[in-house]
Amino acid sequence: MLERIRIVLSHTSHPGNIGAVARAMKTMGLSQLYLVNPVADPDGVGRARSSNARDVLEGAVVCQSLEQALAGTVLAAAMTARQREMAPPPKWAREAAPEIVSAAAHGPVALVFGNETAGLSNEELALCPMPVMIPTNPDYSSLNLGSAVQVMCYELRLAAIAPGAPPAPEMEPAGFEEIRRFYEHLEAAITQSGFLDPAHPKRLMPRLRRLFDRVGLEKDEVSLLRGMLKTFMKPGNKVD
Amino acid sequence: MLERIRIVLSHTSHPGNIGAVARAMKTMGLSQLYLVNPVADPDGVGRARSSNARDVLEGAVVCQSLEQALAGTVLAAAMTARQREMAPPPKWAREAAPEIVSAAAHGPVALVFGNETAGLSNEELALCPMPVMIPTNPDYSSLNLGSAVQVMCYELRLAAIAPGAPPAPEMEPAGFEEIRRFYEHLEAAITQSGFLDPAHPKRLMPRLRRLFDRVGLEKDEVSLLRGMLKTFMKPGNKVD
Repeated sequence: MLERIRIVLSHTSHPGNIGAVARAMKTMGLSQLYLVNPVADPDGVGRARSSNARDVLEGAVVCQSLEQALAGTVLAAAMTARQREMAPPPKWAREAAPEIVSAAAHGPVALVFGNETAGLSNEELALCPMPVMIPTNPDYSSLNLGSAVQVMCYELRLAAIAPGAPPAPEMEPAGFEEIRRFYEHLEAAITQSGFLDPAHPKRLMPRLRRLFDRVGLEKDEVSLLRGMLKTFMKPGNKVD
Repeated sequence: MLERIRIVLSHTSHPGNIGAVARAMKTMGLSQLYLVNPVADPDGVGRARSSNARDVLEGAVVCQSLEQALAGTVLAAAMTARQREMAPPPKWAREAAPEIVSAAAHGPVALVFGNETAGLSNEELALCPMPVMIPTNPDYSSLNLGSAVQVMCYELRLAAIAPGAPPAPEMEPAGFEEIRRFYEHLEAAITQSGFLDPAHPKRLMPRLRRLFDRVGLEKDEVSLLRGMLKTFMKPGNKVD
């Protein structure tokens, strides 16, 4: 679905921003870049800021008008920093992203970003049925163009692809019996050391269990902890 | 809460990125910028890229080490692009943001970003109990530094202003210094007991840190564990 979403930049002034947009898109798996009347062509600065997303930059489609960039789309969403007169109420980025991704199931979709200083004109916005806003600090809402594209592409990626579990090493969790024996070992060790007075246990074991239960101990960690406890105990005290 | 979250940049190479970070922070309502050994001071390019977030840039605290930047914090989260050996499994940005905001109810919190090319070193990452990842295109995961800060600050803003944010936990998290002293105490205790041979440390401390970092130790738990360690040590050995 991400391949079907066009990022459309209208009247962009700074080549560096176009490069940053290409990079932002590619990091999130988007590749369709449309440039409407860019004030400057991507130059050396643009290429530098695109980093290794040069393919996105070089594949950009340059258009003479926003209508041309929207041709063939089934939905056009447009970024705005404020509610405009006569426009539908804007949706928040997080709310809009799944709707944009759903629409992409039916055909190409566009997400339009205006000029760095002036944003989109009212005429441009009128071509886009879905205005979208990124929530910002009301005292300073001036998002950089590349940053706005980054946030939107991030939301689109999360809407399109549930990220699943983060990568984690393959650790084997400790079993019930191993954990029970660890707690017995721990209790014996702190009783012997005098930290736990069986006559006045003061909830020490429940507090320690709460801590170690929370962590989700691994098999190797139980061995590590029990190895450590052994060295803390006086010789001659054997705990299974 | 956003005012209590420090954005820490370690060994940043490009002044322009520092400026972009200042702007990204301010658009989302954050203002505490810490710079650990930046390779270059923010110059004209940095000031230009900061746009009207010059106040954030000029208020930046320059530190000689990551420890210094983390002093006084109750939680340090660190951005990473991959699972590292011996580190706890990373959390996704969206999952981490509400936890970072909740921790900020108890005191300053840090979110640490590494160098543009190399990221954070394993040593730096070991100081931060919560590794965080931004989901990206597996074929091109090279987020620009300013963009990564933008996405995280956006997530933090949404977590901070979300009406249904879970209430802060009743328990007070242990601070950076308390945790550091606990690890020193633990290392002294297992060295004295003979479990740790300084000549052949066998990654014992990294493995123990990985375990205790994962749990998110509370203030009371650090006292409990250190009380226990004291009783394990031979008298006459005093650890701060």
